Amino acid sequence: MTTRRERANAIRALAMDGVEAAKSGHPGMPMGMADIAEVLWGDFLQHNPTNPHWFNRDRFVLSNGHGSMLQYALLHLTGYALPIDELKHFRQLGSRTAGHPEYHHTPGVETTTGPLGQGLANAVGFAIAEQVLAERFNREGHDIVDHRTYVFVGDGCLMEGISHEVSSLAGTLKLGKLVVIYDDNGISIDGEVHDWFTDDTPARFEAYGWKVIPAVDGHDAEAIKKAIAEATSQDEKPTLICCRTIIGFGAPNKEGKESSHGSPLGADEVAAARKALGWEYGPFEIPESMYSSWNAKEAGAKREQSWNERFDAYAKAYPELAAEFKRRLAGDLPADWNEVANAYVRKMQIEGPDVASRKASQMTLDAFGPHLPELIGGSADLAPSNLTIWKGSKSIGLRGADANYIHYGVREFGMSAISNGIALHGGFIPYDATFLVFSDYARNAVRMSALIPAHVIHVYTHDSIGLGEDGPTHQPVEHLGTLRLIPNNRVWRPCDAVESAVSWKVAIERAGNPSCLIFSRQNLKPQQRSDEQLANIAKGGYVLYEPAEKFKAIVIATGSEVELAMEAAKTLGQQGVPVRVVSMPCTEEFDAQPVEYREGVLPGWCRARVAVEAASVDFWAKYVGLDGITIGMTTFGASAPANKLYEHFGITTVAVVDALKRVIG
Amino acid sequence: MTTRRERANAIRALAMDGVEAAKSGHPGMPMGMADIAEVLWGDFLQHNPTNPHWFNRDRFVLSNGHGSMLQYALLHLTGYALPIDELKHFRQLGSRTAGHPEYHHTPGVETTTGPLGQGLANAVGFAIAEQVLAERFNREGHDIVDHRTYVFVGDGCLMEGISHEVSSLAGTLKLGKLVVIYDDNGISIDGEVHDWFTDDTPARFEAYGWKVIPAVDGHDAEAIKKAIAEATSQDEKPTLICCRTIIGFGAPNKEGKESSHGSPLGADEVAAARKALGWEYGPFEIPESMYSSWNAKEAGAKREQSWNERFDAYAKAYPELAAEFKRRLAGDLPADWNEVANAYVRKMQIEGPDVASRKASQMTLDAFGPHLPELIGGSADLAPSNLTIWKGSKSIGLRGADANYIHYGVREFGMSAISNGIALHGGFIPYDATFLVFSDYARNAVRMSALIPAHVIHVYTHDSIGLGEDGPTHQPVEHLGTLRLIPNNRVWRPCDAVESAVSWKVAIERAGNPSCLIFSRQNLKPQQRSDEQLANIAKGGYVLYEPAEKFKAIVIATGSEVELAMEAAKTLGQQGVPVRVVSMPCTEEFDAQPVEYREGVLPGWCRARVAVEAASVDFWAKYVGLDGITIGMTTFGASAPANKLYEHFGITTVAVVDALKRVIG
Repeated sequence: MTTRRERANAIRALAMDGVEAAKSGHPGMPMGMADIAEVLWGDFLQHNPTNPHWFNRDRFVLSNGHGSMLQYALLHLTGYALPIDELKHFRQLGSRTAGHPEYHHTPGVETTTGPLGQGLANAVGFAIAEQVLAERFNREGHDIVDHRTYVFVGDGCLMEGISHEVSSLAGTLKLGKLVVIYDDNGISIDGEVHDWFTDDTPARFEAYGWKVIPAVDGHDAEAIKKAIAEATSQDEKPTLICCRTIIGFGAPNKEGKESSHGSPLGADEVAAARKALGWEYGPFEIPESMYSSWNAKEAGAKREQSWNERFDAYAKAYPELAAEFKRRLAGDLPADWNEVANAYVRKMQIEGPDVASRKASQMTLDAFGPHLPELIGGSADLAPSNLTIWKGSKSIGLRGADANYIHYGVREFGMSAISNGIALHGGFIPYDATFLVFSDYARNAVRMSALIPAHVIHVYTHDSIGLGEDGPTHQPVEHLGTLRLIPNNRVWRPCDAVESAVSWKVAIERAGNPSCLIFSRQNLKPQQRSDEQLANIAKGGYVLYEPAEKFKAIVIATGSEVELAMEAAKTLGQQGVPVRVVSMPCTEEFDAQPVEYREGVLPGWCRARVAVEAASVDFWAKYVGLDGITIGMTTFGASAPANKLYEHFGITTVAVVDALKRVIG
Repeated sequence: MTTRRERANAIRALAMDGVEAAKSGHPGMPMGMADIAEVLWGDFLQHNPTNPHWFNRDRFVLSNGHGSMLQYALLHLTGYALPIDELKHFRQLGSRTAGHPEYHHTPGVETTTGPLGQGLANAVGFAIAEQVLAERFNREGHDIVDHRTYVFVGDGCLMEGISHEVSSLAGTLKLGKLVVIYDDNGISIDGEVHDWFTDDTPARFEAYGWKVIPAVDGHDAEAIKKAIAEATSQDEKPTLICCRTIIGFGAPNKEGKESSHGSPLGADEVAAARKALGWEYGPFEIPESMYSSWNAKEAGAKREQSWNERFDAYAKAYPELAAEFKRRLAGDLPADWNEVANAYVRKMQIEGPDVASRKASQMTLDAFGPHLPELIGGSADLAPSNLTIWKGSKSIGLRGADANYIHYGVREFGMSAISNGIALHGGFIPYDATFLVFSDYARNAVRMSALIPAHVIHVYTHDSIGLGEDGPTHQPVEHLGTLRLIPNNRVWRPCDAVESAVSWKVAIERAGNPSCLIFSRQNLKPQQRSDEQLANIAKGGYVLYEPAEKFKAIVIATGSEVELAMEAAKTLGQQGVPVRVVSMPCTEEFDAQPVEYREGVLPGWCRARVAVEAASVDFWAKYVGLDGITIGMTTFGASAPANKLYEHFGITTVAVVDALKRVIG
């Protein structure tokens, strides 16, 4: 008979061995949380190792992701497709056992963690998705959406500001199926936390409206079991279980100390720990009886089978709902999507409304929204400015079947990381919003959208000095460039209502990957386009204006500055100087086009190039080179009406004309 | 006799009129907090309008900075150099009344606010600075450092994650002279907050170890006075005073509603408010009796005079301490600074240690630190990795005269905004630290360092895929580029111990302005330099290697990749192809050099250019143009040993050699 402690020690041994083999990593957390993990995974977690994608599984998130060996050990022992060889190659190139858990990379890992606090935020996103999806699809006697989200967090996660944002919101939204287990080991990298972390954490979470189970002995399986049972006995409030643990539990000379946190224990200490734990097996050696004890494949298959049967019954009772549910989970867009979207884009081209692109964005939501029940969105308390509420928006706080709007409050980072969680859960395409300058607050979550990657649409309005009087604290200068530098990101800055609609369309279709949509506060003039030009918008950059004569220079522009570029080309045309205008709403999409297309738009022979964008000039060297000129910003903005600022900073038609003349020489 | 309410109404009238004239702005908060401001500024705040820089003044921070008209009204009424004409030109180009309060721009504004939560964090920095400076300089009977920090915060500030980080730390550090007044008006931009903000805020702050005074009527002057008196009756704990207020108080149709928050009230509502408030004067009209009642110039001058006398007595008793105190406040470096710093740089050039630049950074701190008691620093719980603790470091938690180290905990954003506050307080040069990738968490505070600007040194280690096994979540790719895009920032990425020492020297000397110092995890080979080359490092870019024959190509590199560039030049030199190597530790500093110098380093005739940096390639187009090649990253990193990753991503000497051959053609 394998005891609970022995089962936990299997985790401890694998964690020690993995870190030792890699010569780097974090043994302390897995050894400290092994007993908790043993209870949660053994007695509670509803999952199916053979099918990590089974929809109704409980989600498990390791927010303290540096303890990755804990998760790899659990996945390996319970029967996921993660053989022992992968654990032996912990942190090596090409292995499935990266330094921190990575979604898409390891079966059973629900999200990529490591940047502290964000796993907790993703988990709040999972719990929101479950709650909203349940409201939408469950019917009396048919709870087809019914699972919990479990999260492990450490001191680091709870010190991070994002933990405040998302825990506060989770309390308000009464996410009763969220269970957070706090590894209260009193140690962080700098040492014993009492000199920098003295919060009364239980009181803090009670202030958020959580159920709190304090002072659980994290090495007493029965106490842990009782706590988790209590947490899951109700669905009214999210629960925080505070477990007192010993970091590096079992390592006789390093347990309870920072020295066990982030480095291999060393051969001697590993040997001593094996002895202290009574673990008699060699490195990476797990006896068959232990594997049998941990194996969750059969139980998992039964769980899924049982759910499948429930789903079949549901499908019989509600065939249309079931079909829609399947579509949502598969991430397929509605059958008429392309038609609907293209018709709207054409309509905008014909009607040519003279509106701010943030307004064009809202109009697009009004047009697309009714066809996309999977769209769920919100803003960090800037709904009236971001214009993210459309006619079909209904707050999820109201709990209706058609609820689709999240009032995030002033919580940009939490919001964006929650979006990542909602996207990974499945069933939704989340969008979120704030002012472009405050994408800074969410910065690492936006990076994580691209790294995970997750199908999230970040909407950023008030995109330049064009926002005017709010001044330099609110005026983005460097942000377009910095967002474009994130690998696998797409940054769209449309020049009118047509490009705005296309940007939404492309972002919605970018399954599994994120986009940032950047919109203006001020009105933007509609541009004329042929059918070919209309089709080329989606390529990220295209010739918007071609003079009758062979062009002598090219001016590239985005967003509100396309107007200036067009006027400059017109002015020079009247002076007999033919200039091509390239609208470049998405540089990354343009870069991804075949070289023939790119060469067609920006031919190598033409070095007389000017770029104009009311943002950092440095980014544009990539397209205009050493011989070109960029009109834009080199300093922070100022507080004044927008038109005064454009004059003041020299972003004008006159300046573009002058620059074009200079590059032509 | 002017009543308190009438005094408060003067603020309300100016706020309404300013916003009305600007046709934009936020009247609601100033009208809601006017009664509180009247009590604080009338009865408690120790300041001198005639000398906004008087050292021992209380600091006042408007963290909900959108209510800027409140602060402008207070400054104007109490007698600062902010005439009524400036208020009439609220939010106009060139006026001193920007949309949000700006440091350096308006006398009496202690820090730039608007990005929510950061004002509170700056204020925690002020309070830390006061506490540490008092420990250092006060003597029995001579409390020359003795002032409080008052902060106004709104719901938005308290929803932001940064409020958690800094309030938690303030509680731990027992910042008893910090008084935060919470404008609990129940309204944010999306509407009534109960659907997205239901924290029990008093309980939350008690959990942080604060003194909390709940449920104060924010329109009852006596209640407010009692609360502030209670807060200032002790120095043991920071205090939160929760004031229930009505946003837009006095505007009969809009008070208590979101409609009063962020837009002009409109002429009719302004007229109605004047009537409701009993305010009989025209726009921007303040009767003389009201000015007399508010004027704080005489009282302020007396306060300063009294402190000056105390300081004279102190100077007599402790002449050396007083001289040092004056030096610290003036921001002058020690007399022997230049000599000390240059000697150390030369020493490094001679000794040439083969160390990681993070280690070189620590060695520099060991060398410079004993000469710079104004240096105060810390890390967000990564001290053993960032190597920010030097031999003279002593935790401020210990409260000694020589305390200079802050264990920030895992709070990157809070840390960086606290640094801004410490720098603005005066008496210190703050540094802070985390991994480069987690500069993301602090992003907007780093921007604010440059915008305010503040003399802060941000230290970022683990600067590339060279950190190895921790994997892509921890490997910066885009961050060098994104930090360089912040106007007025300086980003140094040194290639060896010598450049590391120079980067610290330049950052310390960059009075009033910030720098980011980027250091490697892995060892970097020392480079040889002539005296001229040594002197040129501070110029940000210089010729590190010049071949005997006229060069055919230039390779530009930074940090760990300088080694690769040097090897490539050597390899090609052996093949008869002369190549110049440019080390470019700080591109912004290089850009600031005279054109002759820049042309000398990167002559226009040579378009055969290669840049190599283990980061986003896009940034370098600025220097290599359309004909050059950049060797670097185009994707996220991976989890593996560093040398494997450099191979895997093709950042090798072979790749640099190949690229150089291609650009030479």
